[in-house]
Amino acid sequence: MGYEREDLRCFNGYVPGEQPLSARAKLNTNENPYQPGAKVLRALRGVTAEALRCYPDPLANVFRQAAADRQGLTADNIVVTNGGDEGLRLALAAFLPPGAPLGLIEPAYGLYPGLAVLHGSPVCAVPYEADWSLPANAAEHWNGAGARLAIVTNPHAPSGRLASVAQLMQIARAFHGVLLVDEAYVDFVEPELCHDTIALVRVLPNVLLLRTLSKGYSLAGLRLGYGIGAPDLIRPMLQKAKDSYNVDAIAQRIGAAAIADHRYAARTWRLVRQERKRVAAALATRGFTCPSSEANFLLACMPAGAPISAEMLYRALADEGIYVRWFDSDRLRQHLRITVGTPDQNSLLLAAIDRILALPRVNDKGAPSASGEESCSD
Amino acid sequence: MGYEREDLRCFNGYVPGEQPLSARAKLNTNENPYQPGAKVLRALRGVTAEALRCYPDPLANVFRQAAADRQGLTADNIVVTNGGDEGLRLALAAFLPPGAPLGLIEPAYGLYPGLAVLHGSPVCAVPYEADWSLPANAAEHWNGAGARLAIVTNPHAPSGRLASVAQLMQIARAFHGVLLVDEAYVDFVEPELCHDTIALVRVLPNVLLLRTLSKGYSLAGLRLGYGIGAPDLIRPMLQKAKDSYNVDAIAQRIGAAAIADHRYAARTWRLVRQERKRVAAALATRGFTCPSSEANFLLACMPAGAPISAEMLYRALADEGIYVRWFDSDRLRQHLRITVGTPDQNSLLLAAIDRILALPRVNDKGAPSASGEESCSD
Repeated sequence: MGYEREDLRCFNGYVPGEQPLSARAKLNTNENPYQPGAKVLRALRGVTAEALRCYPDPLANVFRQAAADRQGLTADNIVVTNGGDEGLRLALAAFLPPGAPLGLIEPAYGLYPGLAVLHGSPVCAVPYEADWSLPANAAEHWNGAGARLAIVTNPHAPSGRLASVAQLMQIARAFHGVLLVDEAYVDFVEPELCHDTIALVRVLPNVLLLRTLSKGYSLAGLRLGYGIGAPDLIRPMLQKAKDSYNVDAIAQRIGAAAIADHRYAARTWRLVRQERKRVAAALATRGFTCPSSEANFLLACMPAGAPISAEMLYRALADEGIYVRWFDSDRLRQHLRITVGTPDQNSLLLAAIDRILALPRVNDKGAPSASGEESCSD
Repeated sequence: MGYEREDLRCFNGYVPGEQPLSARAKLNTNENPYQPGAKVLRALRGVTAEALRCYPDPLANVFRQAAADRQGLTADNIVVTNGGDEGLRLALAAFLPPGAPLGLIEPAYGLYPGLAVLHGSPVCAVPYEADWSLPANAAEHWNGAGARLAIVTNPHAPSGRLASVAQLMQIARAFHGVLLVDEAYVDFVEPELCHDTIALVRVLPNVLLLRTLSKGYSLAGLRLGYGIGAPDLIRPMLQKAKDSYNVDAIAQRIGAAAIADHRYAARTWRLVRQERKRVAAALATRGFTCPSSEANFLLACMPAGAPISAEMLYRALADEGIYVRWFDSDRLRQHLRITVGTPDQNSLLLAAIDRILALPRVNDKGAPSASGEESCSD
């Protein structure tokens, strides 16, 4: 017998998307296709040997204040985390007694149930509706099971669907525990929707928002996220649940520069939204169906009567150096999750799909000309 | 009532040492007093915008291999962590069922019992002997309580005392669970002692070593550590317990450069050992008693008949911009933990102690002249 915890032995752990060393189009892990801006690089170049030598600020107060200012809140509304993943774990540690169930709506990010297993907690999961909208009865189910924490991804992954602030408020009001809204993709929401979840934090004591700089701010390599909530929610995460120095000095510095220059990031979001619209239309032309997405990816359901399965298409694309994500689960097996890339990457993908499915060549309205790629230099 | 877990409400969390924005001598958090070398800085300067944009290697394989090569092991003996703290947490997550006790020898790093509280586990603690040597009966106590994981800091903090490989082997053989040896300070052990714990990993399936680059490699700002153990111990930490992308791209890159240039770091260790000897002798001259330390700090017990308490000395030093560590616990209340700094910093400290305690001025043998500070440039 080994030394591993018995209750972990049948648990496989979350497997992140492939990180191939080279790819013609890497559209599988929802990175921002545009690099971070010049101000971020200037902050990186300014990191000193002394900043490496010394422990960082354990509370990351400079970044914390920058994030608070950006949201019109105060620093005691913010906890800074080593990527969004750590924020999830801190919420379990702070609010969920080991053994008490974690509320989920499934399918969702595969890490959520994994964190519950590690925490020694079961999962109380409610399924998404067929159109990927939130189930009306989620809070009742969670309350019935005695859940003290529940997680909703919004915009949802992998569908990209956005639940409204009113819907979230309804669930949070009905739920007896802490509602964590994982907003990893919220930066890509269409501004015309005026989707402002900070309002929830102002009025509800049990809503915790989780943001990340990985996608919106093109900083996936850095591991930097933050939680937003009432000070009574932030305090136990900050003072009790997190490792002493959870975010390194470089990430704190670069993150603050990125937030301060959010207008650069916002330009990348606009480009992604433009391409999201074009790719969704192009996939529809080819018979794929995609839920309306407010994230930087599309969940494409295979065309009726497609000659191959989604898994086969996923593998054929990978053979061409084009990486998308396929999930081997009942509800998702006939889908591909496709990150929105640059216009060139997206055109590569569409052309490869045409070739693999032997579709007649489609002239996609709005496809960029060879020289027409919009640049996002700072 | 709030949303915080009930079992956390009486728990204060671990409070790390102060990180003052300016200090004449910061000798309170055991950083290496010398900055990292030129090769590390070159690696930092080489970080690209693309490395920031993309997710890092989730397994940190380049660093993993570098660490394995350095120890004469293979990559499957290594798990890379976000500082040593994360390594501790991963060990609890992988080997300790929530509720089962964590074995400790106290006093030790204040984070250990905090991690147990978060994990929902009690602590089974055995006291260190009066001379800070390991208690002979530790494994028996832990076995009796049903502990599945125990942590020993070696060299011990805050005393600096080193337990031999033979002593560790005896405890590991007797213990029914995983023995985690926290070797945060092992780089500063006198090489003539030939203290080689890798031998334990080769012969015992239940020994997990934890290393960090924070102290020995002058990279506290970076958050990078690693665990060393049999592949059966490493696998659940790597594949199940850790967050998907726990170590950022910059830390992976810089860490590999630091390990590859370990000769630079070894030169800083030698300088620290020289000063450790000088400061220990100087403190002894002043009536302080310090256990023999193999770490980069000294635990100084106040002189008999000192006019003020250790706490008062700690505060008086801080008023002069000289930061050391004082612990408000029964066994440590009359001690100060003093990080070994540069010769100048140490001389500042000794002079300040003389002033505060109104001791006659001592001419410390071996104190550097004003221009005699040994440089550690690469």
